[in-house]
Amino acid sequence: MKIGFIGLGRMGSGMAANLIKTGHDVTVYNRTADKMAALVKQGCRAADRVAGACGGEAVITMLADDSAVETTVFGNEGIITALGKGCIHISMSTISVSLSEKLAEAHLRAGQRFVSAPVFGRPEAAAAGELFIVAAGPQDAVNACMPLFDDLGQKTFVLDAKPSAANLIKLSGNFLIASAIEALGEAMALIGKAGIDEGRYLDIMTSTLFVAPVYKNYGALIAKRKFEPAGFAAPLGYKDMRLTLEAADGLRVPMPFASLLKERFLRLLAQDGDKLDWSAIAQLAAEDAGVRD
Amino acid sequence: MKIGFIGLGRMGSGMAANLIKTGHDVTVYNRTADKMAALVKQGCRAADRVAGACGGEAVITMLADDSAVETTVFGNEGIITALGKGCIHISMSTISVSLSEKLAEAHLRAGQRFVSAPVFGRPEAAAAGELFIVAAGPQDAVNACMPLFDDLGQKTFVLDAKPSAANLIKLSGNFLIASAIEALGEAMALIGKAGIDEGRYLDIMTSTLFVAPVYKNYGALIAKRKFEPAGFAAPLGYKDMRLTLEAADGLRVPMPFASLLKERFLRLLAQDGDKLDWSAIAQLAAEDAGVRD
Repeated sequence: MKIGFIGLGRMGSGMAANLIKTGHDVTVYNRTADKMAALVKQGCRAADRVAGACGGEAVITMLADDSAVETTVFGNEGIITALGKGCIHISMSTISVSLSEKLAEAHLRAGQRFVSAPVFGRPEAAAAGELFIVAAGPQDAVNACMPLFDDLGQKTFVLDAKPSAANLIKLSGNFLIASAIEALGEAMALIGKAGIDEGRYLDIMTSTLFVAPVYKNYGALIAKRKFEPAGFAAPLGYKDMRLTLEAADGLRVPMPFASLLKERFLRLLAQDGDKLDWSAIAQLAAEDAGVRD
Repeated sequence: MKIGFIGLGRMGSGMAANLIKTGHDVTVYNRTADKMAALVKQGCRAADRVAGACGGEAVITMLADDSAVETTVFGNEGIITALGKGCIHISMSTISVSLSEKLAEAHLRAGQRFVSAPVFGRPEAAAAGELFIVAAGPQDAVNACMPLFDDLGQKTFVLDAKPSAANLIKLSGNFLIASAIEALGEAMALIGKAGIDEGRYLDIMTSTLFVAPVYKNYGALIAKRKFEPAGFAAPLGYKDMRLTLEAADGLRVPMPFASLLKERFLRLLAQDGDKLDWSAIAQLAAEDAGVRD
C-alpha cells in the first residue's frame, strides 16, 4: 500500500521500518528530521511537512499524546486538509476517548475515513512486528488496513464498535498493567522488608498464579531496580491514568485504584522521575517502607 | 507415612483423600463428625478428638483461621500436648505471620518440629492434587514432609527461611490476586458502561497481556456475575487482607492498595456478601458505576 507514517519515536520507528521491510510504499514524517534519515536508508521517502505524508491511501499517526495528534490533524496543512477523499487516517497512538470521538467526526465531515487502532507492546515488540492491535472503525476501512496490521503486529482484534472503543480498551489495559505494577511494588516491599529474597519470591509467583509476561517482566525490573532506560516512561504512565480517569469521569465510573495510581505517578514525576520507566512507581512503595536498595 | 489430618473443609477433604489414595496411613479429625464418614469409606481412621490424630510421625492442620488453629494446637488435649517428641506439625492453613511465629516457638519448646506449608489453589486443585505449596521450616523436617507434599501438590517451593516467611508469601500472593480482581472489576465497569462487551474485552486482555489463570478465571466469574457457590468465600478474602495489613503493620510497610482492598471486602460483608466468592468485590465497582446486570 502507499502510505504515510507520522511519528518516529521509540514505537513509531520500529513500526515504520516493518512496513518498509514488508514492501509498502512508505513516506515518513517526523517533527525532528534526524529520526527520518535511518528509515530513508531502509527504502522510504521523507516528507518535510505533515501534508507530504498524506498523499497515499492511508496515513498512520503514532504520536506521544493528544496535543501532538491534534496539531498534526487540525494544524496548518494538517491531515484533515491534506488527506484525500475516502482515504484513511489510522490513529495508533494512545489518545483520549474524547479526542478519538472528535477525530471520527472531523474525518467523516471531511469525507475521509477514520480507524482507531491503538497497540499493546513495548518498543521491542514494535520493532519485531509483534504488537497486539485493537482496531475499530468503519468495516470497509478496517478491512483495507488489515494487511498493514498483519505486518505490524502478531494479532489484531477488530471491534464491532465506534473507533473510540478501541482507545478505551487500550487505556483500561494500561490501567490493568499499572495496577499489577503497584500491587507487585507493595508486595515486594512487604516481603523484602521481611528479609525474603525478592527474586525467589517472583519466581514462585510467576511460575504459579501469575505466569503472565506483565508480572514476569515488570517484576524483574522491580527486583533489579532497573528503571532506566525507560521502555515506557513515567510521564506516559501518568498521562494514561489521567486519560483513564477522564474517560471514567465522562462515563461516571468511580475507579479507586485508578485514582490512587494517578497520584502515584504524579508523585514519581514530582521526584524527578520523568526519565524512569513507569514501573518505578514500585520504588515508591519500597521508599515508603524504608526498604534500602 | 503415618499421619493425622485435622480440618476437613472444602480444601482439607480433597487433600486428605489424596493422602489416603496414595497409600498413607491417615487418621482424620474434624470438629463436625459428618465430614469424616466419606473419608473413612476411602480407607482412613476417624479420631473423636484432636489428640486422636496426633499419634503418627506428622499431623497436618488445614483450618479456616487463626482462631481454629490456636484452639487445635493450644486447647485442651491439643496438638502441643498430644504430638510425640520429634514429630512434625505441618500447618497448611492460611494463618497470620504472628501465629506462625508463635507456633514455631511453642513446638520448639515442646521438642516437636514445625513446618509451615500454606498452599495456593482452589478446592478443585486440592482435590486433583495440583496445589502449589510454599514450605519453610527446619531442613530435616521439610525433607521428611516432601513425600506428602508430592502427593498433595504439583510443585513445592522450599524456602531457606523461618516458617513464617511461607505465611507471608501466601498472604502477599492473595493480596496480588485480590488486586487483580479489583483492577478487573474497575476496568470492566468502565468498558461495560461504555457499551463494550465484557466477554470480548476479557478475551482480548487474557490472550495478550494477561494470560494468567487468575485473570482468566476471575474475569470469567466477573463477566458472568457468577459469585455463588463461592470457591473462596468473601470472609476469607477479608481475613487475608486483614492479615496482610497486620503483617505490614508489624514490619512498618504502608500498602495503599491493600488498605483499599480491606475496605472493599468489609463493604461486601456489610452488604450480606458472606456467601459470595471473594471476586464479588468486582460487583461493587459495577454497582458504584450504576452498571446494570
